[in-house]
Amino acid sequence: MVSGMIKLDASVVAASSVVGYLERSGPIGHCFDFYDDKKNGGDRFGQDTFEKAESEMQRIALNCAIGKCGLRSEQLGAMFAGDLLNQCTSSAYGLLDFDVPYFGLYGACSTAAEGLILAGTMVTHGVYDYCASVASSHNCTAERQYRTPLEYGGQRTPTAQWTVTGAGAFVIGRSDDQHVRLTSALPGIAVEKGITDTNNMGAAMAPAAADTLIRYFRQSMTMPCEYDAIVTGDLGYEGGGILQDLVRMEGYDMGKRYQDCGQIIFTKQMQDTHAGGSGCGCSAVVMASYLLPKLLRGEIRKMLFMGTGAMMSPSSIQQGLAIPGIAHLVVLESPKNIGGDMS
Amino acid sequence: MVSGMIKLDASVVAASSVVGYLERSGPIGHCFDFYDDKKNGGDRFGQDTFEKAESEMQRIALNCAIGKCGLRSEQLGAMFAGDLLNQCTSSAYGLLDFDVPYFGLYGACSTAAEGLILAGTMVTHGVYDYCASVASSHNCTAERQYRTPLEYGGQRTPTAQWTVTGAGAFVIGRSDDQHVRLTSALPGIAVEKGITDTNNMGAAMAPAAADTLIRYFRQSMTMPCEYDAIVTGDLGYEGGGILQDLVRMEGYDMGKRYQDCGQIIFTKQMQDTHAGGSGCGCSAVVMASYLLPKLLRGEIRKMLFMGTGAMMSPSSIQQGLAIPGIAHLVVLESPKNIGGDMS
Repeated sequence: MVSGMIKLDASVVAASSVVGYLERSGPIGHCFDFYDDKKNGGDRFGQDTFEKAESEMQRIALNCAIGKCGLRSEQLGAMFAGDLLNQCTSSAYGLLDFDVPYFGLYGACSTAAEGLILAGTMVTHGVYDYCASVASSHNCTAERQYRTPLEYGGQRTPTAQWTVTGAGAFVIGRSDDQHVRLTSALPGIAVEKGITDTNNMGAAMAPAAADTLIRYFRQSMTMPCEYDAIVTGDLGYEGGGILQDLVRMEGYDMGKRYQDCGQIIFTKQMQDTHAGGSGCGCSAVVMASYLLPKLLRGEIRKMLFMGTGAMMSPSSIQQGLAIPGIAHLVVLESPKNIGGDMS
Repeated sequence: MVSGMIKLDASVVAASSVVGYLERSGPIGHCFDFYDDKKNGGDRFGQDTFEKAESEMQRIALNCAIGKCGLRSEQLGAMFAGDLLNQCTSSAYGLLDFDVPYFGLYGACSTAAEGLILAGTMVTHGVYDYCASVASSHNCTAERQYRTPLEYGGQRTPTAQWTVTGAGAFVIGRSDDQHVRLTSALPGIAVEKGITDTNNMGAAMAPAAADTLIRYFRQSMTMPCEYDAIVTGDLGYEGGGILQDLVRMEGYDMGKRYQDCGQIIFTKQMQDTHAGGSGCGCSAVVMASYLLPKLLRGEIRKMLFMGTGAMMSPSSIQQGLAIPGIAHLVVLESPKNIGGDMS
């Protein structure tokens, strides 16, 4: 059995986030770099369709990230990008302006982590000096593609998650002591445990997250207490609880170290988002603008971050298939944590 | 400007192909490893839907490739896979049986080359000993997703290409002198030149292919005559002609060295496939079962292989957007070519 662990030696030299009105109104709304401030008719970013708006969010996010670290786009060796739309068009169109080699990804909501692993690997081995990872989702494009027309106003079940309108971009460069470091990664294995309810993606993804996390603890011979934070992408309240149970059964108690981007981004009671946020944009923007700054300031010294994805399509569900989940894990360390592990 | 070139030092230790009835009936039909031999009601590979059949083709292809080189699937460090279906479900479901880390890709018909680059990079830098790249397409899943229901029997235009029913799998391992070597790669930049006709994807992809190829010749300071074969994935007759013109205008005459997998796989006159084959499976199966054996035997000593993709979706076209193309280039060398370049 291949251990699967990837050793990384790279830094997140810049990150940025673009979100919609609801995300801006949430508990970490003040953290994000850009938002569309129109409450009604907002989330369009000046575009005439929501799909074009999602592309525009990716463009703004990457432009902003590049600007923050003073790079020109031509200095990027490659971009790794993906989204939830059929044929990943948000990424393909959104990043057309950048004259940079493009690797299209499809990892459902795990895309941000998948991109960080691949960009980090390229930089670690000196293939390129800088790479970008970009991911997005848009509530209005996802709803009408995966579920029902927006105008239908279908009622949502308690376990349903709310697709985040957001795009996150990360620029990965050589490891240094000023930025958050990517130190290792464990790519996920697709896991399918018979969940067929697309209104309960947390339950479909939790077994994949547990698989990756338990493999990680065993292979690294570490315990949850060695990390300040263990964060999943978007299991939400339902899947997050299942993950904690599954991992506890194997002897790993995460306790309050465990958090989920889908739980962080919205206020459960006030924002009517049911089981929490989801979508490629969810973990991307929470990581870019809420978790990375905490790592940078040393409030989190060492973190496990797992992007989680549900890789079904409306067709596969209509044909009676269950939902395959996947979870890609990345280990991030604070620049304040150099020279030794946590005591 | 980053040169973008990736130095590779890996070998294709095994490859396999699974095709449908029409592909099997074509000029290189005898080369493929597996096919579904039912003429009517065929191309189903024992499954009750075409989508499940496409997944099954991926499963068979990877199993066969692993078997050819005597590996167990657990020895694969990672799989890179993609297809044309919404949310890339052929890959996600087809490879579920393999307990191997999974990186989902979306590169449209360039997927096989995108996967070869990433798998080759992982192996070159010792991240993993073995990686797989898998790609597929199925005429019946693609037609009804991108165009019209199969039963509609819509008439096709002369520039329309025929989506290949096929899956190709490659196992990449450390470089050796027994197998075809991957020696370098140049990832593609997305290029959009205003083509909006989805029945002319060759024209949409040709500018991207020209961009990659011209960048490659300039950066490697080589000329077309230094390669025995320069092969594109699926520009077909229409796009292939455009590419030759575009490249010739920059001073690079490819002449008879130029071939296209979409032209190779079908007989133009007899098989009614109009402008040639297309789909992720097209370049994957032609590479796996026709081109690699030629490299292995030394009939081709050094080859440029470019996977070409058109990254639109039905929605993006309906919204009036043009088709972004991409072309990822890989350089392959025959084991008979060791110790020196061609004279």
